[in-house]
Amino acid sequence: MKQVRAAVLEAFGKPLEIREYPQPGEPAAGEALVAVEMAGICGTDVHLWLGQLAIPLPNIMGHESAGRIEKMGAGLTKDWRGDELRVDDRVTWASSISCGECFYCRMKKQPTRCLTRKAYGISYCASDAPHLRGGYAEKILLRAGTAIFRIPDSVPSEALIGAGCALTTAIHASERAPLEWGDSVVVQGTGPVGLAAIAVARAAGAGTIVATGGPPHRLELARGLGADVVIDIAKAGDVEARRAAVFQAVGPYGADQVIECVGYPEAVNEGILLCRDGGHFVVLGQYADAGNISFNPHTITRKQLRVVGSWGFEPRHVDRAIRLLERDGHLRERFAAGITHRYPLARADEALQMARSLAGGKTVILPQAK
Amino acid sequence: MKQVRAAVLEAFGKPLEIREYPQPGEPAAGEALVAVEMAGICGTDVHLWLGQLAIPLPNIMGHESAGRIEKMGAGLTKDWRGDELRVDDRVTWASSISCGECFYCRMKKQPTRCLTRKAYGISYCASDAPHLRGGYAEKILLRAGTAIFRIPDSVPSEALIGAGCALTTAIHASERAPLEWGDSVVVQGTGPVGLAAIAVARAAGAGTIVATGGPPHRLELARGLGADVVIDIAKAGDVEARRAAVFQAVGPYGADQVIECVGYPEAVNEGILLCRDGGHFVVLGQYADAGNISFNPHTITRKQLRVVGSWGFEPRHVDRAIRLLERDGHLRERFAAGITHRYPLARADEALQMARSLAGGKTVILPQAK
Amino acid sequence: MKQVRAAVLEAFGKPLEIREYPQPGEPAAGEALVAVEMAGICGTDVHLWLGQLAIPLPNIMGHESAGRIEKMGAGLTKDWRGDELRVDDRVTWASSISCGECFYCRMKKQPTRCLTRKAYGISYCASDAPHLRGGYAEKILLRAGTAIFRIPDSVPSEALIGAGCALTTAIHASERAPLEWGDSVVVQGTGPVGLAAIAVARAAGAGTIVATGGPPHRLELARGLGADVVIDIAKAGDVEARRAAVFQAVGPYGADQVIECVGYPEAVNEGILLCRDGGHFVVLGQYADAGNISFNPHTITRKQLRVVGSWGFEPRHVDRAIRLLERDGHLRERFAAGITHRYPLARADEALQMARSLAGGKTVILPQAK
Amino acid sequence: MKQVRAAVLEAFGKPLEIREYPQPGEPAAGEALVAVEMAGICGTDVHLWLGQLAIPLPNIMGHESAGRIEKMGAGLTKDWRGDELRVDDRVTWASSISCGECFYCRMKKQPTRCLTRKAYGISYCASDAPHLRGGYAEKILLRAGTAIFRIPDSVPSEALIGAGCALTTAIHASERAPLEWGDSVVVQGTGPVGLAAIAVARAAGAGTIVATGGPPHRLELARGLGADVVIDIAKAGDVEARRAAVFQAVGPYGADQVIECVGYPEAVNEGILLCRDGGHFVVLGQYADAGNISFNPHTITRKQLRVVGSWGFEPRHVDRAIRLLERDGHLRERFAAGITHRYPLARADEALQMARSLAGGKTVILPQAK
Repeated sequence: MKQVRAAVLEAFGKPLEIREYPQPGEPAAGEALVAVEMAGICGTDVHLWLGQLAIPLPNIMGHESAGRIEKMGAGLTKDWRGDELRVDDRVTWASSISCGECFYCRMKKQPTRCLTRKAYGISYCASDAPHLRGGYAEKILLRAGTAIFRIPDSVPSEALIGAGCALTTAIHASERAPLEWGDSVVVQGTGPVGLAAIAVARAAGAGTIVATGGPPHRLELARGLGADVVIDIAKAGDVEARRAAVFQAVGPYGADQVIECVGYPEAVNEGILLCRDGGHFVVLGQYADAGNISFNPHTITRKQLRVVGSWGFEPRHVDRAIRLLERDGHLRERFAAGITHRYPLARADEALQMARSLAGGKTVILPQAK
Repeated sequence: MKQVRAAVLEAFGKPLEIREYPQPGEPAAGEALVAVEMAGICGTDVHLWLGQLAIPLPNIMGHESAGRIEKMGAGLTKDWRGDELRVDDRVTWASSISCGECFYCRMKKQPTRCLTRKAYGISYCASDAPHLRGGYAEKILLRAGTAIFRIPDSVPSEALIGAGCALTTAIHASERAPLEWGDSVVVQGTGPVGLAAIAVARAAGAGTIVATGGPPHRLELARGLGADVVIDIAKAGDVEARRAAVFQAVGPYGADQVIECVGYPEAVNEGILLCRDGGHFVVLGQYADAGNISFNPHTITRKQLRVVGSWGFEPRHVDRAIRLLERDGHLRERFAAGITHRYPLARADEALQMARSLAGGKTVILPQAK
Repeated sequence: MKQVRAAVLEAFGKPLEIREYPQPGEPAAGEALVAVEMAGICGTDVHLWLGQLAIPLPNIMGHESAGRIEKMGAGLTKDWRGDELRVDDRVTWASSISCGECFYCRMKKQPTRCLTRKAYGISYCASDAPHLRGGYAEKILLRAGTAIFRIPDSVPSEALIGAGCALTTAIHASERAPLEWGDSVVVQGTGPVGLAAIAVARAAGAGTIVATGGPPHRLELARGLGADVVIDIAKAGDVEARRAAVFQAVGPYGADQVIECVGYPEAVNEGILLCRDGGHFVVLGQYADAGNISFNPHTITRKQLRVVGSWGFEPRHVDRAIRLLERDGHLRERFAAGITHRYPLARADEALQMARSLAGGKTVILPQAK
Repeated sequence: MKQVRAAVLEAFGKPLEIREYPQPGEPAAGEALVAVEMAGICGTDVHLWLGQLAIPLPNIMGHESAGRIEKMGAGLTKDWRGDELRVDDRVTWASSISCGECFYCRMKKQPTRCLTRKAYGISYCASDAPHLRGGYAEKILLRAGTAIFRIPDSVPSEALIGAGCALTTAIHASERAPLEWGDSVVVQGTGPVGLAAIAVARAAGAGTIVATGGPPHRLELARGLGADVVIDIAKAGDVEARRAAVFQAVGPYGADQVIECVGYPEAVNEGILLCRDGGHFVVLGQYADAGNISFNPHTITRKQLRVVGSWGFEPRHVDRAIRLLERDGHLRERFAAGITHRYPLARADEALQMARSLAGGKTVILPQAK
């Protein structure tokens, strides 16, 4: 029986181990067996590795991946968009499957809060057959109902995985807090989500975009993706200095929209300070529970704010991400260039530690590489 | 020279004093001299009296009033709606005047955050001529540009002032956080704003409405205005008990919309708990800065919430309040019945202390009463 | 083998015939066999009977029905809302099934325009097994994926079928052209859709509602469902007279929203005339292609209108209809009272002719009655 | 007394005449005397000249102009945005003044339908003092309340007038029918409004943009402003051929949004054909009443369309137009390059005939040129 190698998280904080699992037989109806060609390492994976979220162990991580279809089960003939799907097609897929029937999926049209949602690379125990439910592996078996997308030839996997789930996350947020054309935008943070939020704001018709973050190479990426003004938080080191710098760029009342992509809870208070009265404040970086802040709710009423949360993304946001990259060669080139480190599967743990160090740009695993 | 009597706040926390001011001569262009017939005492007036907001002293309070036009300056021929205006007409007016030209008025269409907004009964120093800029007085001189509304004969002043600025405030909030038809609503608090929010939610197509508050006579008012379920916070004394009671009424995931009308900062954390994922949480009660809370911003992201602030109201919300009362006899009767205490101007301080005690319902001053 | 009787349309314009079909065996997974207790005759059925829409023959019509579950296939344990479903439950169901995967269902979230939509009582050929796909029959076999709703005990079938698919249609339209609170509304036409549109506008927070239609007994129903002013088109016989009467009720510029529920193409030109500049005009009655009108598109630009079409409804509109009836006893009573004629299945053709004559109110078939 | 020269329309269809008017004395409060440097000739001016709209004669046309402030009346110290305004500043201004108080201005927030709106270059009789109310003149006297905008140094008048009122008109339309990010757009017509609509759609986040129009040099402009695909109506000469070409670009169901910028009434029927079910169809070109079409309203219901009219623009759309040009050097260059013909005031009639001929691009008058 053929074996498939995977990098497995067996204990939180311990090195990933390479394990072998039996290759599944013929896919059942609607399933697809995909040879993973590139698996991005998301910041969330570092949190998972550290045990900061409750996931089953052992676990094959990897929720932003691209690969080639090896086998398709009965009835699987089209991708999510309705385009024909064939063996050997290069594809990506939405990391989560929603049930379509629960209170949130059906009654509230809010599938990111589906009551039984499961995500590849996060929610599956690698001990349970068919084992292969994460991207850090030579192959992944996609469940029936997975939103699979054929990747257009013009969009290299580097561009798509370089953008990663940060791009789809930012697109979802942009939908929840739509820009009015010409709105000034502050993006707090220049990690993957912040960079993606800049690109999305630019594509969605923003006026002046200010990014606060660092270090300098990330600020350079921010400029390349559309920021008009970048503020290095290492230099403008206190809140008041940052506020002054932001207001100089967006005007004396603050920005029309502030998008928090930092993750430190305190960024929320600073973001509200940067937002004009009646503006939108998007809390997009607080994916992990990083604790409480001292917060004054009077500000919400007096500044007449809209504070908007956004969680994950839906298949149609993947569709939009692909279309955006298809239309915009500059973004393709920028996101692809954001990948600075590539590792074969055998060195997956090394890849994870590189991502953890924040020393480079995007880090990816190439499971088919020798 | 004729004199006009007014109840004046001369020092924070001290009894209101009755003072006399010279009656203004002929109104200038656009101005109106109005004989105040009824002036509501708003909870905000108690905060003003206590010195919790920065206002000039001496001050003639009173920002929710009705009266009869005595004199009109040149060019004032129509009310805000365009209906003819005549001496002796019974009128009310928007408490604030926005400039129409500043960044917030013009560029952002958000006049409640006008940079130079002034409000009758709040922002004017009674020492400065023409002195009469508040409702706790026999007469008030309305500035040119004031949004004056002729009150339809079918709407008694008792109904309008019984509803007070709480109704216009709730209408503005409802506009900022529109209900989807049939949405379940929790209103936290059964003070004037909470009661008005119930009435507005009912009129705007809400499904199940739950009110949490007290004491019992206020819960009875809440029922009369449209609450399907009322929860006495004195009985369901802890957060978990209230949550359970609310969820029993609105379903196991929380309410589609929660409207905080309490004013205690901690109510914000409870409100978020009561709101379903992806729901609207309206922070409407935090008008005064009552301090900070320990708050977890991760909740905003994970629950994918919309947290909405709303500040004051615009003239068109007064228009809607009047039309609502015009259409709905039941609401007229309910709001009028909410007035439990009436005082002549000479006993204005007594009226204020009654309002402060929260012992009754709405308290009003009748400046023309002997 | 047990036989099931049904009233069958075998040739357009010919009397319905009573035919027998073999009762299906055990329902397959997800299917339900339902004993039909009440089937409403919709105006569309008359159009179908006349051959004005392309449907397969023979055909068991009936797309607004209620009944009791006799048998459920494997896996069918909950209704659309997630409430437990049992044999003998009284239920109704959405008449159409959308595919969930086509361009309109998936990409555009517009399942009423699903490319492969099929409707009970309309799209199925009665010659094809399992035959029983319409409401004019003792039993109907619901396909897997049908949106089934358990009817709350407080909602009699008379209220639900009395409202019929007109109510769900009007709810969908109201979602597409949301009222601003207090908006004036003109409903053109007092057939089932017009009456339902009145009820929905009232429940959704409309201000003045004017209905134009007839005859007098329908205008009385219009009043009962929420119209403030009714205009008998037989009396106000020309367009100008109707315009004058409408403007007297809603003001000199026209209504904020006009909802066309007539079906005659010319009603569209009149509706535009009744609508204020910048208002919403909802074209809801043009379900059949009743030909062209002479139309001036300059009006759209100059009046700065929003003209909105709405087609059919989705399962969640059925959910809202049921909840509305659950909340509002007055509407339950009004819609139930709208049923004026009841026929056993054997007299289905007679029922259809009664509906065609427009002489009464709602006509229903009671397939279990002797 | 100083004299000011103007080109005057004295009789419909007759050559413009150069007349002299006395230069106004000191501007009254809020007024501004402006030396016109560039006045665009809008297609509407040709309609006015032909007598197709009711305007007073004699008339100084010209409603899209830029110039330098010569004198300012008391109290005029800031432009519409609140930026300081000084003599010699280069400015433009909104062509219309709305009253701010009528039903449409105040109650419906729809000032483009103001009941007493007056537009420079259109609504004023040149015989009435102060005469100078149009752009085809050496000077114009702006009324108090005019929305004046200082033009940023980076925006040449050529770019602004090259874009003309078509740009502000397209921005208003885009606000009324907002694109969802990535929507496919068809723009019917490549006259000034069509070209501007392309630029706005591109800036607002459109996906594929298709323009149908001609002649070839205008299709080239369309490409330069953002059209991905251009269809020459002279080549794709019948409706079906155009439909096929459009669908090839946007997919087999039609475009998400179609913007009619043609003016021929029949374009409306073609536009509806090009629009997918549930899409937006914007009727933007029907400014003049060009007669009726044979139209089938069933299409609105069945295709579940949104048909949106948009009339003129508000001051804030001028603000957005300036900001767009300020941000986007490519658009500045494109719009400036669209000006192909320049005439001194003395040859204003020649300029108008050139515009009428449609032979070139944008035609402008330079009133200060010798």
